[in-house]
Amino acid sequence: MNTPAFDGLILGAHLATLDADHGYGEITDGAMGWRDGLLAFVGPRSQLPAEPHVLARDVIEASGWITPGLVDCHTHLVFAGDRAREFELRLQGASYEEIARAGGGIVSTVRATRAADEADLLRQSLPRARALLADGATTLEIKSGYGLDFDNERKMLRVARQLGDLLGIAVRTTYLAAHALPPEFKDRADDYITAVCEWLPRLQSEGLVDAVDAFCEGIGFSPEQTRRVFDTARDLGLPVKLHADQLSDLGGAALVAEFGGLSADHVEYTSLESVRAMAARGTVAVLLPGAFHVLRETRLPPLQAFREHGVAMAIATDCNPGTSPLLSLRQAMQLGCTHFKLTPEEALRGATVHAARALGLADRGVLRVGMRADFVQWQAGHPAELCYWLGGQLAEAVYASGRAL
Amino acid sequence: MNTPAFDGLILGAHLATLDADHGYGEITDGAMGWRDGLLAFVGPRSQLPAEPHVLARDVIEASGWITPGLVDCHTHLVFAGDRAREFELRLQGASYEEIARAGGGIVSTVRATRAADEADLLRQSLPRARALLADGATTLEIKSGYGLDFDNERKMLRVARQLGDLLGIAVRTTYLAAHALPPEFKDRADDYITAVCEWLPRLQSEGLVDAVDAFCEGIGFSPEQTRRVFDTARDLGLPVKLHADQLSDLGGAALVAEFGGLSADHVEYTSLESVRAMAARGTVAVLLPGAFHVLRETRLPPLQAFREHGVAMAIATDCNPGTSPLLSLRQAMQLGCTHFKLTPEEALRGATVHAARALGLADRGVLRVGMRADFVQWQAGHPAELCYWLGGQLAEAVYASGRAL
Ligand SMILES: [Zn+2]
Ligand SMILES: [Zn+2]
Repeated sequence: MNTPAFDGLILGAHLATLDADHGYGEITDGAMGWRDGLLAFVGPRSQLPAEPHVLARDVIEASGWITPGLVDCHTHLVFAGDRAREFELRLQGASYEEIARAGGGIVSTVRATRAADEADLLRQSLPRARALLADGATTLEIKSGYGLDFDNERKMLRVARQLGDLLGIAVRTTYLAAHALPPEFKDRADDYITAVCEWLPRLQSEGLVDAVDAFCEGIGFSPEQTRRVFDTARDLGLPVKLHADQLSDLGGAALVAEFGGLSADHVEYTSLESVRAMAARGTVAVLLPGAFHVLRETRLPPLQAFREHGVAMAIATDCNPGTSPLLSLRQAMQLGCTHFKLTPEEALRGATVHAARALGLADRGVLRVGMRADFVQWQAGHPAELCYWLGGQLAEAVYASGRAL
Repeated sequence: MNTPAFDGLILGAHLATLDADHGYGEITDGAMGWRDGLLAFVGPRSQLPAEPHVLARDVIEASGWITPGLVDCHTHLVFAGDRAREFELRLQGASYEEIARAGGGIVSTVRATRAADEADLLRQSLPRARALLADGATTLEIKSGYGLDFDNERKMLRVARQLGDLLGIAVRTTYLAAHALPPEFKDRADDYITAVCEWLPRLQSEGLVDAVDAFCEGIGFSPEQTRRVFDTARDLGLPVKLHADQLSDLGGAALVAEFGGLSADHVEYTSLESVRAMAARGTVAVLLPGAFHVLRETRLPPLQAFREHGVAMAIATDCNPGTSPLLSLRQAMQLGCTHFKLTPEEALRGATVHAARALGLADRGVLRVGMRADFVQWQAGHPAELCYWLGGQLAEAVYASGRAL
């Protein structure tokens, strides 16, 4: 009896395995086989142990390049409504106050998200998740943070889980009730944080929380309030990450590092001292060039310090309706290369292996035997093309756990 | 006998007709019927003269918004090879000389384009044209300029024509032999211009030339050389346009206006005097925010002066392998809003009616009875969304001359 060694086998493309400290980990004319959702062979086609049709029932002839599936480690893609009209008002010269009076700003997204029922919220969020997958994502992180009360934060996290089930991919949920102060807690931020901390164990017990996040900023929550949220997370055994140092340096990156956090995100204003703290604890710097682009920021994250101190840099879309309406991680990589002068290799690592680390996931982000069979076959002559083109459809096939999406 | 009034009828979407001096020319719950490739009804559904199934054999129930088909009025999308590796070298810190030594720069595209035969050049260019169409373009301008000798310029223009036939859309060809100095004319730019002028009538006689362009710049051709090309075009009755004032002010925009040219393109350094000359002759300003983005330029075109003097502003992808690897006019609109602070309405007019004008085409770019039935149905809640999202697939259906692409 001949049992095929693999459930599937893909041939004819070059591999960018990223399974090396430097470079793309290129394998020319490669082959990849998988079984039970995990990679079982990664190497040159010439080293396959037998004829392809003997090794697998399902043999796929491909071309171009194969990379690990992309990991979008920072999104707010579950929301209702959109803010295109606000975007237009801003470009027409409306002031912040005029936009607020016209019903704009995050409060408008909170209002729309609260008003939508679970099915509607799922229906509105699904095309965004699909767009990210169509451009190569196989793992999505999704934050709450537009509900801002127990029921609505729960609704958002439930929708995030449903998206994962529906799409057949891994969704990591992040509890971000400390995103903004809801109107019912006006001038009572500390009381709101108390509520945020009370809701967390209840949502965790429903299996809805993989990590905890907060927006630590002058216009958000203070380091002290953030610390209370993080203390609660630590007591519950939940990992933390933080919207840190986007508009000013409140020491957010150092704070999240102090808690051994997974990542500090945005980090435009992060100090050298905080970089050192991140390096010491292995906290990943998540770069969000979409928000940088849309907000026309000029202050760059301390990229050279991250490199010199060995802080891993991830890239994510930050997909959200106000400051980063990005539906493609590849476009985030393009913006990272353009605005932050990342090399295409840094950008690709940032959207794969480093992004996986920012989610605490060690089973994906490189092409190596034993890792999840999450990969993308791209219509490209070189991996740098992923960062080069704006627009277009480069992903020809996207596989999650060995299944074509 | 009942003959249906229309070949096709689309219902259920709102229309952004742009058929008004200001605003989107919105029609809520609109209907559009067409016959023989031209629009025969544009109005509210409630004003249809009869029941839909009586009016047309083919009744399409849509949703979202319908806009005129997008017009990409400035592309170099016919070329061989790519420059992703050069893009990578640049981000790795390579100098201009190192890139040139590694075979980069426009000369590498000229070499690859010359080496490709007609079929191969078509094969390589087709996915780029398809990508532009998939994101809403129904008219493409395509320039020569990587051949730089008679046979290879001819090959490029023939491929451009073939793309139009193959895709069932209108392609406008532009002769841009005065794009760069080929190696065989080193230090003999005037002699090259003589050759460029000699080739033009021969290519025109083959029906390959709709307009004539040149690269007027310190690193390109001088105003005097440009004038020689334009004089030849004028004698042949061909309209002109110009790569003008991108990196310095050589008075290029005024020069092309002097010839009653269709458009001055790039125009970052265009002077107020040139703006006045453009206004006087109706020359369109074609903005190319993709190149601005990729080159990290900071000098903005004189946008306010264009507005005040009534110079129409178009937007195009400038799709090319060196400075603007854009495969989506919608993304060019996004970059125009972000970098140039255009309003979404300006960006949409720029990619439709004003772009059509930049090609001398009066039969498209707005939704109005008698115009070509070129239109796009978008999955969007507001026309501003076309400029808002980066990535994603917003175009649900694209029609050229009443045929679904
Ligand atoms: Zn965020
Ligand atoms: Zn150009």
